[in-house]
Amino acid sequence: MERGAWSLEKSHLQKILTFPLKYHSTNRNFRRMKLSSALLAIVASLSYAKKDGQALSPPMGWMSWQRYVCETDCETYPDSCISENLYMKATDLLVSEGYLDAGYSQVSIDDCWSTQERDDNGDQQANPDRFPSGLKALGDYMHNAGVKFGFYSDIGTHTCGGYLGMKGNFQRDIDKFVSWGIDYLKLDGCYEDIAEMHDDYTEVSKILDASGRDIVFSCSWPAYVNNHGEDNDGEILQTLSEICHTWRNFDDVADSWNSVSSIIDYWARNTTDIPFVQVSGPGSWNDADMLMVGNNGLSLSEERTQFALYAIFASPLFLSTDLTKVSPESKAILQNREIISVNQDQSQQGIVLSDISNDPDWWVNVRTFGRALSDGTYAVVLQNYGNMGPYVNIKFDVSLLSQIGASVTTESQYTMRNLYTGKDVEGTFTGDEFVVPVESSSVEMFIVTLA
Amino acid sequence: MERGAWSLEKSHLQKILTFPLKYHSTNRNFRRMKLSSALLAIVASLSYAKKDGQALSPPMGWMSWQRYVCETDCETYPDSCISENLYMKATDLLVSEGYLDAGYSQVSIDDCWSTQERDDNGDQQANPDRFPSGLKALGDYMHNAGVKFGFYSDIGTHTCGGYLGMKGNFQRDIDKFVSWGIDYLKLDGCYEDIAEMHDDYTEVSKILDASGRDIVFSCSWPAYVNNHGEDNDGEILQTLSEICHTWRNFDDVADSWNSVSSIIDYWARNTTDIPFVQVSGPGSWNDADMLMVGNNGLSLSEERTQFALYAIFASPLFLSTDLTKVSPESKAILQNREIISVNQDQSQQGIVLSDISNDPDWWVNVRTFGRALSDGTYAVVLQNYGNMGPYVNIKFDVSLLSQIGASVTTESQYTMRNLYTGKDVEGTFTGDEFVVPVESSSVEMFIVTLA
Repeated sequence: MERGAWSLEKSHLQKILTFPLKYHSTNRNFRRMKLSSALLAIVASLSYAKKDGQALSPPMGWMSWQRYVCETDCETYPDSCISENLYMKATDLLVSEGYLDAGYSQVSIDDCWSTQERDDNGDQQANPDRFPSGLKALGDYMHNAGVKFGFYSDIGTHTCGGYLGMKGNFQRDIDKFVSWGIDYLKLDGCYEDIAEMHDDYTEVSKILDASGRDIVFSCSWPAYVNNHGEDNDGEILQTLSEICHTWRNFDDVADSWNSVSSIIDYWARNTTDIPFVQVSGPGSWNDADMLMVGNNGLSLSEERTQFALYAIFASPLFLSTDLTKVSPESKAILQNREIISVNQDQSQQGIVLSDISNDPDWWVNVRTFGRALSDGTYAVVLQNYGNMGPYVNIKFDVSLLSQIGASVTTESQYTMRNLYTGKDVEGTFTGDEFVVPVESSSVEMFIVTLA
Repeated sequence: MERGAWSLEKSHLQKILTFPLKYHSTNRNFRRMKLSSALLAIVASLSYAKKDGQALSPPMGWMSWQRYVCETDCETYPDSCISENLYMKATDLLVSEGYLDAGYSQVSIDDCWSTQERDDNGDQQANPDRFPSGLKALGDYMHNAGVKFGFYSDIGTHTCGGYLGMKGNFQRDIDKFVSWGIDYLKLDGCYEDIAEMHDDYTEVSKILDASGRDIVFSCSWPAYVNNHGEDNDGEILQTLSEICHTWRNFDDVADSWNSVSSIIDYWARNTTDIPFVQVSGPGSWNDADMLMVGNNGLSLSEERTQFALYAIFASPLFLSTDLTKVSPESKAILQNREIISVNQDQSQQGIVLSDISNDPDWWVNVRTFGRALSDGTYAVVLQNYGNMGPYVNIKFDVSLLSQIGASVTTESQYTMRNLYTGKDVEGTFTGDEFVVPVESSSVEMFIVTLA
């Protein structure tokens, strides 16, 4: 079967994959094993994904949460409170600043949009002071601009911010949201019994399937599970990949390197021995949470790192920034078409390729991430995650690509294209000949083409 | 006595200050008390400082450690290994890039410059491969450029990097260093019994005093003390201020906000109830460690924060960056003359003025720092140290300045000059009328002039 063909029937897939998932649940040593190339090659061609043709690439857009949180005081903060003005302005800027053209196709409302009580019909409604035109009008505004309408609710009794949740009103609320024209539903998991998440998320998924409208479904389930699914027995992931297009795995991102690096480290730890990677692919994406590029908490080097690695992780790419304040350098990162292409590739997410248990020196910490792309090339990120000292020369060993299905030896020849400079590196390299200086707290990103 | 007059005799000072220092050692509640305005007003006019007319303002310069650490492989890293080339290049750039003019007056060698063994005379010598011209020639190179020669050794048997220490050779080594023309000695504390630091640092101080050369003495003592002196009984500080011009208190800085913010938080915790502040002033400065501005680990907002607060803390300002790679925005921060003037003011370091135990909301964390300047004005920094959400409006209450000796009430009038825009704020304000939006992870800095 060709890489990128994601068409097996679910029943068939489940049968094939029962072994590794069960094995994992009963034998903790499995977590320390690296999947063999052979097993990876099989798994890479399969998917549990929700089969409705949506989210064949990771969703991209703008989301209010991290930057605007739950500010509801529009008198003091007219430009940054959660209101229709905020989302209309984001819609305008997404278009005028070139983000829509680059692929960021939706604007997502997040928490704190609703009233505290349902209306007389029992329906949810937007806060009338902050959304005087109503959500149907806001959705129309976005659609007229060519932008999709991302939406937010919670599967429990309340949202995390204490607003109305959907619990007990799944059909009624989805009907309402559909009438407003939503295209994407991020369904949070606050105020919900974790034991009920399986049935409740499944029920909402079925209602969405029957709604007659294409709505990408983003679930927040693993983020709430003990240890973020690192102790996962695979069953949750199997369900998620059948009922959701994407799901949040780890902690909420904050605007700091401490937060972003903890997310990156989570994926660095969990890309080879936990089934997260195996369930990723078209219609089925692990969500690393929002990009902080363009905000106040990351250096330019750290922004480059987050963006490059989110492309390797095939994570949804959601901006959460004031689009009027993004520096030209940060905007160039966010609109880097070649890195976006890696992110949008309809293939399984990448993994860390190097042995990160053996750092060569106390101030030198390097690692190599790689992702096999549908066109037969490979995206690699060489990261210097040390925060002492100057640049280090990182050596790329092409034979590492065997872990993501490449037929390579230590003698294989290859060429390199640098995605941050947008230029081909001169020459053809063999084995581990390619060496590149990488600054502390930074990355270099390449497309590797085997000769 | 006028603020800024630092001329009382030591014996007199010791007598006056015996009470609060002893009280602190026997009553932990003291740590939770804020010094009363009256006590602060007394203490602010005193000093234990080493009385030789040196370091009347905090030292400024460039230091190799954080950026270049202990890289000794000059074949692989010719531009960044610890070598005479590195320091000559830094000297050239300090001049050509305008840093010397802005006040950064020295280039400091750090660890890993020596051989592993003493020479046949028992003297220390520089590694001949990396310093082929010798250290006398390197010092001359700096002096010819108008730059002072900062130097490094260790009071123990070895440096932290495992090179030669001074233990047992204090007089011999100082003689040698003087012959090389050093102007500043950072004396580290690895491989030394903490119990011997008092006597050993005192002995070196006396040798320096008798050396016939002006050498600013930087001690690394409190950084090695249990809990970084937060459990200090004041005796160490008293000795430090008599024998050293500056001393490192807290952990080594790394190129990350995690590190820099931990240093800032240390001072925010310890500016009112530990005697660190009281011993600061001309010839006697707490050293918060190097600036990371211009490197890879801080955002522009975080760089603005570190620089503004190091001015409040009256910390030595040492760059540790590749001066060829500093962005124009970072360079503007480092060469901001008005903020440098605050740092260089010959007055006691500032303190946190606001009650930081009571944050108004979970994503809003703000605090106000202030420093009384010799000309009767006050430098204040309003910090938004939250990393969620957009800007917050921070209200400045002029009555807070009473904590640093100002005669103010809630009705006092004042004007404000913004040090990052370099402009006076229009109008005169009363009490807590002044409000300014401050971005997350950022600061605004002002000079307050009472009307």
